[in-house]
Amino acid sequence: MAVCRNFYLGFNLAVTMAIWLLVNHSLAESSKSVILVIGDGMDDHQVTIARNYLVGSRGKLLLDKMPFRAVAQVLTVDEISGRPIYVADSANTATALATGQITSRGRIATSAGKDEDLPTIVELANAKGYRTGIVTTSSITDATPASFATHVSSRYCESPAAMIDIVKYGINLGSCVNDLKINGGLGSISEQLAKSNTHILLGGGRQYFTVTSEMSQKTSLQQALESGFTVIHSWEESNQLYPSDRVLGLFSEEHLPVKLRGEQDRSAELPKKSFLNHINNYFGEVTLPAPMTCVKNSNFLNTPTLKEISQLAIKQLTYDNHKGFFLMIESASIDKQSHERKPCGSIGELAQLIDAVAVALNYAEENPDTLILVTSDHTHAAQIVPDKSLFSEYPVPVYTPGRLARIYTKEGGILAINYATSNFEAEEHTGANVPVFGNKVAVSEDLPTYMQQSDIFKFMARYLELN
Amino acid sequence: MAVCRNFYLGFNLAVTMAIWLLVNHSLAESSKSVILVIGDGMDDHQVTIARNYLVGSRGKLLLDKMPFRAVAQVLTVDEISGRPIYVADSANTATALATGQITSRGRIATSAGKDEDLPTIVELANAKGYRTGIVTTSSITDATPASFATHVSSRYCESPAAMIDIVKYGINLGSCVNDLKINGGLGSISEQLAKSNTHILLGGGRQYFTVTSEMSQKTSLQQALESGFTVIHSWEESNQLYPSDRVLGLFSEEHLPVKLRGEQDRSAELPKKSFLNHINNYFGEVTLPAPMTCVKNSNFLNTPTLKEISQLAIKQLTYDNHKGFFLMIESASIDKQSHERKPCGSIGELAQLIDAVAVALNYAEENPDTLILVTSDHTHAAQIVPDKSLFSEYPVPVYTPGRLARIYTKEGGILAINYATSNFEAEEHTGANVPVFGNKVAVSEDLPTYMQQSDIFKFMARYLELN
Repeated sequence: MAVCRNFYLGFNLAVTMAIWLLVNHSLAESSKSVILVIGDGMDDHQVTIARNYLVGSRGKLLLDKMPFRAVAQVLTVDEISGRPIYVADSANTATALATGQITSRGRIATSAGKDEDLPTIVELANAKGYRTGIVTTSSITDATPASFATHVSSRYCESPAAMIDIVKYGINLGSCVNDLKINGGLGSISEQLAKSNTHILLGGGRQYFTVTSEMSQKTSLQQALESGFTVIHSWEESNQLYPSDRVLGLFSEEHLPVKLRGEQDRSAELPKKSFLNHINNYFGEVTLPAPMTCVKNSNFLNTPTLKEISQLAIKQLTYDNHKGFFLMIESASIDKQSHERKPCGSIGELAQLIDAVAVALNYAEENPDTLILVTSDHTHAAQIVPDKSLFSEYPVPVYTPGRLARIYTKEGGILAINYATSNFEAEEHTGANVPVFGNKVAVSEDLPTYMQQSDIFKFMARYLELN
Repeated sequence: MAVCRNFYLGFNLAVTMAIWLLVNHSLAESSKSVILVIGDGMDDHQVTIARNYLVGSRGKLLLDKMPFRAVAQVLTVDEISGRPIYVADSANTATALATGQITSRGRIATSAGKDEDLPTIVELANAKGYRTGIVTTSSITDATPASFATHVSSRYCESPAAMIDIVKYGINLGSCVNDLKINGGLGSISEQLAKSNTHILLGGGRQYFTVTSEMSQKTSLQQALESGFTVIHSWEESNQLYPSDRVLGLFSEEHLPVKLRGEQDRSAELPKKSFLNHINNYFGEVTLPAPMTCVKNSNFLNTPTLKEISQLAIKQLTYDNHKGFFLMIESASIDKQSHERKPCGSIGELAQLIDAVAVALNYAEENPDTLILVTSDHTHAAQIVPDKSLFSEYPVPVYTPGRLARIYTKEGGILAINYATSNFEAEEHTGANVPVFGNKVAVSEDLPTYMQQSDIFKFMARYLELN
């Protein structure tokens, strides 16, 4: 009898242990999350500019303290020939990050040449039961966020009104005729987002949701409500959300305003040449733009910060969720302000990114099975140039081509930044590899210190066991 | 007796073990070496340009395969005010690497303002019995190599003839009056190198050694012979060296020729504007420079490669040496070719750097107590810009300010590179943080992924136990 009792006791104990192991193993497996933070156009110059301005050249940004650092090679192909293209746009780079596939400029999660839909990490994570979220300071329909949850041949097809003969500034920018629903496509970006399984969509771009959808009497906004999204239009409304709500938050008609700008909204300016200097570069005189300070953008008003919307996203994604989540957070206007030659704007948006990274790291502190990667999609035009030329001894005007901004720093220096990739209204992207930062999970996952941009998708998918 | 015998046996054994431990410990300690490889002006754009050209955008350079990667913040101060300066030159950055101290532009291992001599890693290593070597493709008297073994207030004081009223192109570039021997100084760079304890000095710059020294009837070359250097003037002569020789190798009057150049020695060129476009940027037409190929520089001739002189340096440094060594290897003309807007030249010199890194890594394979760090001193002007503009749909001429080079790549692309930091004869440096690569010793030494440039001195000094 004693043996028998012991047998049952032992058997019960074994069964209990097996169940405990099973439960804990499945819990441990399912609680993994990934937060990918993208600084659009955030290259080493942008990071150094922000460091010099925000914490001083001898200070450290939060990014500098992250335990993992790598670079990613940005790859782009020509739509027709498939040949390498050495400078990317935010559509093809976000596609690489979201799908692991190299495509051509302008494409949103579709393949170059063949125009096939490429499964995104958001879709794959949704299919495995993870919650997913997309947070951005741009329109939620802009290239970077769109590439994580929609498929369309051109980034410009943001609403049902912009599918055929897309026109900006009177210029035809192509079409997405193949993506029309009547042609068997998925429709515009706003329509696809409205119907997506994404749990959280926060950003700007309300205007793209108020257009009536193709083959429907409803706007994308109405479709989003039908799909189960709670829609909010201001940060105040976020107080009334239920923690279980799926949320589409549209906090602006277009991109969200930026936090910082140059005094009197100054951007980089052309050095002013005297009459003689117009005749010959080495004659006459050239007056550089006066130094400026960065000030708060008075238009920011009640705009939520990237930190606030990131916190909201994590709150909603984690409520009563035992499976984990995938969240993409983008600080979009580091790039947009660089296109506009506005260094203060880029600095403020890089500060916003850092605040969002802090939110992510805080979450990971409590939830150690959280992989955090911070990267950029492509490098950009801004360059730190000498405020006093290396050749200032020569008795001729020595100055930069392109536009120049000179910013007073808190540590008493003058930070000179040139924008000299284009004579056009907007600067170009550039083509160097981009930085990648990671938390300690990136270290323990043994990620390599050099990767291709598409590898970032692979590492995230591997971590979430999506394959 | 038995007890006694056992006692002696035990005692002998203990003494033998103690000696064995002592010898092995001291051997292990003394065989440590450091190889610091500097790519002058080698930033992420230069590395990406070289990758795209040499191995294709999907390929990997040897640098990409190194297990350690970090960035270093470059710091510079104003000579008078001590305020931060955001763009460095090769003198103050090499001083940071060689001495761990932040100084002002143009200074060679001397302090800003106070003009005090700062001990260099070469001097500290010499004092501890390590052999030391300096290898460069520039004049051995140029800013980077000079900062490792000499002390002078201006980089231009390369020979006894350039100490008072230094004039280049008719322009006065200051003086080193305080460094004159008659004023208690150490004299010019070539004089100091000739008298240094450095074991190996290989590079160009013969012209700076053929001038009679101050307060002497002898040239720096004659002084070097007196100091025990074997002097060679061509690579052929290296065959006649004894392995025990201390070597001063001067393979050119000035900097060594570069390996690659643009066909017909083309550099980046200004886009050609039509008459109408001269009147207004958005009128008329602009013709971009035709694409070019990179070809071997016919002037390279019998110049030794950086690989060859690095191998020679290691051979001489390690012969009958049980203590280890410090070696600095510089690929100098990545920078010089970028100043001259010659991307093919920079690519060829980055390829030379990679070959030298391979030599260092091979050595470390056999001698695992070898810390290898590869870094740059500052970022530079070259930017990869889109060959086809992001705004090419707009019916106006969209082109880059500054100069543009378009290079055919082997993988069938066109790599467009602009140089747009200066309207002067030479481009400026730029101010972003620089890459740092390391071998597995850097990983096991737990070096941080973000550092200040001066920390590199500290890590090397710590590894060699110089403090």
